[in-house]
Amino acid sequence: MKRTLGTCYYPEHWSREIWEVDARRMAEAGLTWVRIGEFAWSRIEPSRGAYSFDWLDDAISVLGEAGLKVVLSTPTATPPRWMLDRHPEMLAVDVDGRARKFGSRRHYCFSHEGYKAECAQIVAKLAERYGRNPSVAAWQTDNEYGCHDTTLSYSDMARHAFRGWLRAQYPGQGNDGDIEALNKAWGNIFWSMEYNDFDQIDLPNLTVTEPNPSHVLDFRRFSSAQVVAFNKLQADIIRAYSDAPIAHNYMGRITDFDHFAIGDDLDIASWDSYPLGFLEDRIEAAPSYKRAYARQGDPDFQAFHHDLYRAVGKGRWWVMEQQPGPVNWAPYNPEPLPGMVRLWTWEAFAHGAEAVCYFRWRQAPMAQEQMHAGLLRPDSVAAPALAEAEQVYREIADAPEVTSYQSPVALIFDYEADWAWAIQPHGLGASYFDLVFDTYRALRALGLSVDILRQNADFTTYKVILAPGLMHMSDALKGALRASGATVVLGPRSGARDSSMRIPVPLPPAVPGLDVLVSRVESLRPDMQIPLKSGGTITRYHEVLEGDAEVIEETDDGQPAIVSGDCFIYVSGWLDAAAMKRVFGTVCERAGIDVVNMPDGLRRRQTGHEMFWFNYSTAPIDAFGTTFQAASVTREML
Amino acid sequence: MKRTLGTCYYPEHWSREIWEVDARRMAEAGLTWVRIGEFAWSRIEPSRGAYSFDWLDDAISVLGEAGLKVVLSTPTATPPRWMLDRHPEMLAVDVDGRARKFGSRRHYCFSHEGYKAECAQIVAKLAERYGRNPSVAAWQTDNEYGCHDTTLSYSDMARHAFRGWLRAQYPGQGNDGDIEALNKAWGNIFWSMEYNDFDQIDLPNLTVTEPNPSHVLDFRRFSSAQVVAFNKLQADIIRAYSDAPIAHNYMGRITDFDHFAIGDDLDIASWDSYPLGFLEDRIEAAPSYKRAYARQGDPDFQAFHHDLYRAVGKGRWWVMEQQPGPVNWAPYNPEPLPGMVRLWTWEAFAHGAEAVCYFRWRQAPMAQEQMHAGLLRPDSVAAPALAEAEQVYREIADAPEVTSYQSPVALIFDYEADWAWAIQPHGLGASYFDLVFDTYRALRALGLSVDILRQNADFTTYKVILAPGLMHMSDALKGALRASGATVVLGPRSGARDSSMRIPVPLPPAVPGLDVLVSRVESLRPDMQIPLKSGGTITRYHEVLEGDAEVIEETDDGQPAIVSGDCFIYVSGWLDAAAMKRVFGTVCERAGIDVVNMPDGLRRRQTGHEMFWFNYSTAPIDAFGTTFQAASVTREML
Amino acid sequence: MKRTLGTCYYPEHWSREIWEVDARRMAEAGLTWVRIGEFAWSRIEPSRGAYSFDWLDDAISVLGEAGLKVVLSTPTATPPRWMLDRHPEMLAVDVDGRARKFGSRRHYCFSHEGYKAECAQIVAKLAERYGRNPSVAAWQTDNEYGCHDTTLSYSDMARHAFRGWLRAQYPGQGNDGDIEALNKAWGNIFWSMEYNDFDQIDLPNLTVTEPNPSHVLDFRRFSSAQVVAFNKLQADIIRAYSDAPIAHNYMGRITDFDHFAIGDDLDIASWDSYPLGFLEDRIEAAPSYKRAYARQGDPDFQAFHHDLYRAVGKGRWWVMEQQPGPVNWAPYNPEPLPGMVRLWTWEAFAHGAEAVCYFRWRQAPMAQEQMHAGLLRPDSVAAPALAEAEQVYREIADAPEVTSYQSPVALIFDYEADWAWAIQPHGLGASYFDLVFDTYRALRALGLSVDILRQNADFTTYKVILAPGLMHMSDALKGALRASGATVVLGPRSGARDSSMRIPVPLPPAVPGLDVLVSRVESLRPDMQIPLKSGGTITRYHEVLEGDAEVIEETDDGQPAIVSGDCFIYVSGWLDAAAMKRVFGTVCERAGIDVVNMPDGLRRRQTGHEMFWFNYSTAPIDAFGTTFQAASVTREML
Repeated sequence: MKRTLGTCYYPEHWSREIWEVDARRMAEAGLTWVRIGEFAWSRIEPSRGAYSFDWLDDAISVLGEAGLKVVLSTPTATPPRWMLDRHPEMLAVDVDGRARKFGSRRHYCFSHEGYKAECAQIVAKLAERYGRNPSVAAWQTDNEYGCHDTTLSYSDMARHAFRGWLRAQYPGQGNDGDIEALNKAWGNIFWSMEYNDFDQIDLPNLTVTEPNPSHVLDFRRFSSAQVVAFNKLQADIIRAYSDAPIAHNYMGRITDFDHFAIGDDLDIASWDSYPLGFLEDRIEAAPSYKRAYARQGDPDFQAFHHDLYRAVGKGRWWVMEQQPGPVNWAPYNPEPLPGMVRLWTWEAFAHGAEAVCYFRWRQAPMAQEQMHAGLLRPDSVAAPALAEAEQVYREIADAPEVTSYQSPVALIFDYEADWAWAIQPHGLGASYFDLVFDTYRALRALGLSVDILRQNADFTTYKVILAPGLMHMSDALKGALRASGATVVLGPRSGARDSSMRIPVPLPPAVPGLDVLVSRVESLRPDMQIPLKSGGTITRYHEVLEGDAEVIEETDDGQPAIVSGDCFIYVSGWLDAAAMKRVFGTVCERAGIDVVNMPDGLRRRQTGHEMFWFNYSTAPIDAFGTTFQAASVTREML
Repeated sequence: MKRTLGTCYYPEHWSREIWEVDARRMAEAGLTWVRIGEFAWSRIEPSRGAYSFDWLDDAISVLGEAGLKVVLSTPTATPPRWMLDRHPEMLAVDVDGRARKFGSRRHYCFSHEGYKAECAQIVAKLAERYGRNPSVAAWQTDNEYGCHDTTLSYSDMARHAFRGWLRAQYPGQGNDGDIEALNKAWGNIFWSMEYNDFDQIDLPNLTVTEPNPSHVLDFRRFSSAQVVAFNKLQADIIRAYSDAPIAHNYMGRITDFDHFAIGDDLDIASWDSYPLGFLEDRIEAAPSYKRAYARQGDPDFQAFHHDLYRAVGKGRWWVMEQQPGPVNWAPYNPEPLPGMVRLWTWEAFAHGAEAVCYFRWRQAPMAQEQMHAGLLRPDSVAAPALAEAEQVYREIADAPEVTSYQSPVALIFDYEADWAWAIQPHGLGASYFDLVFDTYRALRALGLSVDILRQNADFTTYKVILAPGLMHMSDALKGALRASGATVVLGPRSGARDSSMRIPVPLPPAVPGLDVLVSRVESLRPDMQIPLKSGGTITRYHEVLEGDAEVIEETDDGQPAIVSGDCFIYVSGWLDAAAMKRVFGTVCERAGIDVVNMPDGLRRRQTGHEMFWFNYSTAPIDAFGTTFQAASVTREML
Repeated sequence: MKRTLGTCYYPEHWSREIWEVDARRMAEAGLTWVRIGEFAWSRIEPSRGAYSFDWLDDAISVLGEAGLKVVLSTPTATPPRWMLDRHPEMLAVDVDGRARKFGSRRHYCFSHEGYKAECAQIVAKLAERYGRNPSVAAWQTDNEYGCHDTTLSYSDMARHAFRGWLRAQYPGQGNDGDIEALNKAWGNIFWSMEYNDFDQIDLPNLTVTEPNPSHVLDFRRFSSAQVVAFNKLQADIIRAYSDAPIAHNYMGRITDFDHFAIGDDLDIASWDSYPLGFLEDRIEAAPSYKRAYARQGDPDFQAFHHDLYRAVGKGRWWVMEQQPGPVNWAPYNPEPLPGMVRLWTWEAFAHGAEAVCYFRWRQAPMAQEQMHAGLLRPDSVAAPALAEAEQVYREIADAPEVTSYQSPVALIFDYEADWAWAIQPHGLGASYFDLVFDTYRALRALGLSVDILRQNADFTTYKVILAPGLMHMSDALKGALRASGATVVLGPRSGARDSSMRIPVPLPPAVPGLDVLVSRVESLRPDMQIPLKSGGTITRYHEVLEGDAEVIEETDDGQPAIVSGDCFIYVSGWLDAAAMKRVFGTVCERAGIDVVNMPDGLRRRQTGHEMFWFNYSTAPIDAFGTTFQAASVTREML
């Protein structure tokens, strides 16, 4: 499959007169895909039951005639105002108990059955009408599930649905559920929190002090399941009418629902890549680091998500929205350096993307995102990103097609683990995502191409698998890892909780073949470190180990820091960057994987046929016998 | 007109026995004015409809007999508790949806018609009784509109009134308004936010993510208009009974309503000057700067407001409340240096004040402001400020009268521009007020006396007009500036939005005679700067320019930074202090205005007959052939 | 009385099979006390009126047969979920007006009469059944009153009760109260806040700007009184059935209710000592300081509370919960250094504790506190603290019994003063607790053993009494201090307010025999200091003095800083650590008290027979001719 480009377009924002010109310019720029319809519900159904498809027929026709392929989105992220009159209770409720009002987007609660029925109907109308339209070559469900903190809702509807979900999780006789099973699983005897009936269970917000972590974890699971069900409802309807692949556009660093579970109901995963916005808004780093990459973005953050969504999409994935200039939503919104739009695009292809679409075609002069750049300025003059997109289009013409590449090293990412850490960080700000991302950074600093895996993936093709921070590990997972043939790096907090968020006895990690036990744990102030004899330190989180496993690293004062047994290696804390790079480098080398020492700002990624080098820094880098220009990508055929 | 002094007095706080003594001491200290009545509603109307004027008759009589003139305030900032029983819905509602309860002050929503009717009645009672009283020589409406964030209310009453206001702004057939006109103006097609009816429109709080900026801007305009109407209601009633001038006492750095529009209904503008409180609480500055001026106040902040309220009052303005010692409300409340109360008083006169009144006569031993100093201590012993006031009284005896002075340089300040920046700062914390104030600081550092102007002022008497950050510029304004004969300095963000908060096409600034267009914009991290070739940098906000205007400054990497055409100069970013001083100094010199280099902490101001020098620093300053003593004012006859 | 050890145990958390083993291991470890029952209401009364005592009978029997003594707690801190069905209004309401929901603990409002009646009933049931049980040797009421900010509730019930309380405080004819007396006491004329009736009075939250401080102070007094009444209800019932002593376990740095007033209804005071949690969470200090003591805790914080609760318990006091390892609730939760659990235990004994109980016996594997260490790990293996407890047990065997020791120096702590400072700090973050604690630190740095006293204590046995920051001082207190024979150190803010939170006239401190008057006050930025001629500075808060008292310290610019007269010394500001140590050292020496210069981290405490030295630092300290090992206690017989 050829690598392709695209853009996001809102015909309803523009005068009918310019649609043909827009379409022609898109085609001339080398774009293949045009995503439309995403927020157009108020034009498709201006009032309840009164549909207006003419304009959409027209728009799809104009685009199709220009040779473009349409990705048609369901408009369910933006129900029109009249919907609220029909369903006044459809709004989500925030953790403080306030309804989240109409006037922007994503103003719905995933647990509202009435709204879900409305969604089913509009999706059916669209699928029925356009399911066989030759220009509609792909679908997108909704938009950025979970964005603006919309996964968790504390509404009456959510409470009611949660009780039903719990009854199913703790089944009893008949339909009533087994409340004693729940009490036991949650440990409700602690603080007399025992329930007599499922209808006594409330959502875990506004409690006097922290709620029971088991209660919160179940609420997190329920909330994620509601998103999955919402998406599946749409996907099933579309499939009944269309053979075009179905995608959803995930947003960066949103972890409140299980992306893998949604991916199971999709054909293609996609995500929305805003490197500069993410650097400012969603990455913890020193100001000097943010300053250094302010116009380029973090050198690893996009790559991490590319690898993640390759897994979510089971190999098929896109960038559905690519930042083309300044965005509007970060604390500070600088312009990218010249060359970065091209670099970001190629980086996606290097990680296996089928398509990269720019958000958006023309900068909107009105409403919330008027400060968000497009490929065109509001006056339709080309913005700098358009030329970079056109350059990529010329470059992909004779580049290899999309291929899959088998990495030797894998990193497990698990959404439930992220929830568990968020519920119980133990140390202020300790985040599972950050732990995994730090691990990913270290692997990339060793020049490695990495596969990101879900818990139930096929592990048998890897030499090294890293699985930090998996707070719950099922016996099946432990067994599969042991059977994989790979060296498996665990810890910290691996298997630290059972499936109900309790400490298991025997104590963690309880991995067959690895004779180690976490005797005690502690969280550390940011200014505390525990140095390792071989260099680097343990930071943030530290565990005291017992057992007869082989000690392969010690702390300065002679305590075991990293041990091994069978195929497993256990790391007893959150390593700093130096220690991670050193330790994981050694592990890889012993497993027969070549590693290199990548300079700061330089990263690489391998495909089946190519090696890509990305210089995210503002200066040229001389390394590996080559000069890598600043803000540029270097492609090398293998 | 003679320069005069005064004080704020609350006879109802004190035993009747001491009123005569107080009045005599005021007169002996040289005070002319006594403001009273401000918060006395519960004594004037102890229960609904039961008025008690005897004590007020008595108080006015005592003051009048001592030779003092009374400024009588309407008591509407503090409705008594019984009012709430009559009008339970009168409370404002905060942005989080919570009623703002009784128990302090300003507990009313400007949109509550019932409360407004009550206000009309008490004002009528007062005006009728005292409108011709020879001792009542001026009036004050309410107290510090907008203080404690009270302009914006999210109540049901406000929502109802907002819908009505919108109907009038987007008029249709009959009384219904044209909802399609509103949808178009706001760009509601974006995110399917279109309305079918005005009654669907809610207030723009508690939305899932940011509300539509056009929606917010209209809400801001509406909210300001409600304050204006509230004030006009009172002023009209007073005028029906009295010829005495009407004032309102504005509070420093309150920008949520249009002070000029209120000023149109007043005879005198006045403001409440708390230099030390403002430095701690309302100015963004480095700790070292705040430390340096902790006992003196910011050297430019009072002057800025003096110049602003001279414009609001169309030449007639007072300081209605002047800090006499520590206040109670800032994060830290130190004593002023000896001499500062005199300095602040003279500075007001230097900027054209008719009167300066000290808040308050005697420190209150009870309730919320017991830590607020007065001219007297709670035990009636003179506080240090009293001697400084007496010194000023002796000094004004043979000083010139209040005169007007025509500055050669003007600075436009616009409330709507402040709202627009607040709605869409693009970069965290970027504030229009700060941009204008930074500009003002730079002009003052050049030794200039400055006029502050509203948008529709007469521009023809100036050599240089600065108009930074005016996000919307009407064609009329552009024309008037061009016709003024002055050099006009625009940018950044000048004309960046149309009247509905949309990006105009052609792109900004679209000023006839100036061939420049803002191609792209970006906001910068605080640690990012864009250096200029001639010195100084662009910070916070930066624009990329296109066009054939003459380039008069370039960035270090050769991009146009400041351009000129016709009478206009356009500045493409937020300049730092060094660049502002250098650039504006050059502009002024070319326009034939003399500038000097004022040392840090030294400021000057010219009147028709005098040049004043104010040393805000803690050490003497040798400059211009003179030694300016610390914390002192030097007056020089011209 | 022998010094004893104990632990907190939750038999309901564990399988019945291991109770005997647990009990035997406790006894073997040398423990005397086992506190139980604390959160077990849902097991004692699983549904309304259906009691289940068998398991509790059994548990007490098992413990008693092992030779252990039971402290039986009332379970009222954790009402079961069914209680909420009976009393839906029982939840407290937070300052933002939100009900504080079920799902953790302390979810009740002290003003809910229905809930109080339920508490009376369960307490009566327990007392009746176990009041004469020979194994039940002590009682505990509820758990940690005020923890999680639960003293203040803004519920409808609280409002109703507050009105009733106010009627009693401002009595009028009949039952109606004298509303004019309240208006006058509160100064409600200010801002027209006058009430016509008590039923108009609301709770002082959500006001537009700050509420009247007199209003808040009365609400604070009321709220404290509600806790006292709640506790007394329980204590009175227990006493009707049992002769065993009654305790409550106070939590560190909780000051929202009057601990002395509760102590009047107890036989024993106890507190819950979490040195590492407190250091991170409840102490203001530089990061470097927190880093230095991260594994040891603050060297003075525990001692301060020991001395405080010795006073609250009128000599009889315990540590009811002692941290045995990492806790779960601080921002960071490191392990203590080896030796610290022993050190903390001995420090309690050195200050006169009768018993120290460790929280908890076995780490809970479930629910909110699963990260909280115990003496045993979740797998029942001994955690390190157990060995340290056993060592203390061996050491107390031949150590002296609990004795009382008369300190020569006393420090007054007053809860109302803390509320007054919190209501009116004047300078951001200025806290009475911190002022008193800074004073305590200085005395400890002089090697002194200190008694902490309440306002109405017997002062006659001391040579020096320090009473900083007592914002209200009654005439009786002033007289008692003068009559004590001690040197009494006052200021800043001593007597600064009358009993209604108004500034008194004549101005403060108005202490007979001391001719000084606080003329003016100011709060200072953290970067402002006022140096003293003899060394050290005034920080945060500063007063200007007048009068003929003898000046014993001056500021650098020659103003009186500390004055004396009769037995009194008045300090006109918040001294820094250097000045406090110097000034108080001199005062003590002149009063005939020996002081020494304690090195950082080393502290000492005297009993009737012993001198204890505690090295809180991470390195040995050579001082006083001895080497004090790091993290260790040195005991010396006198």
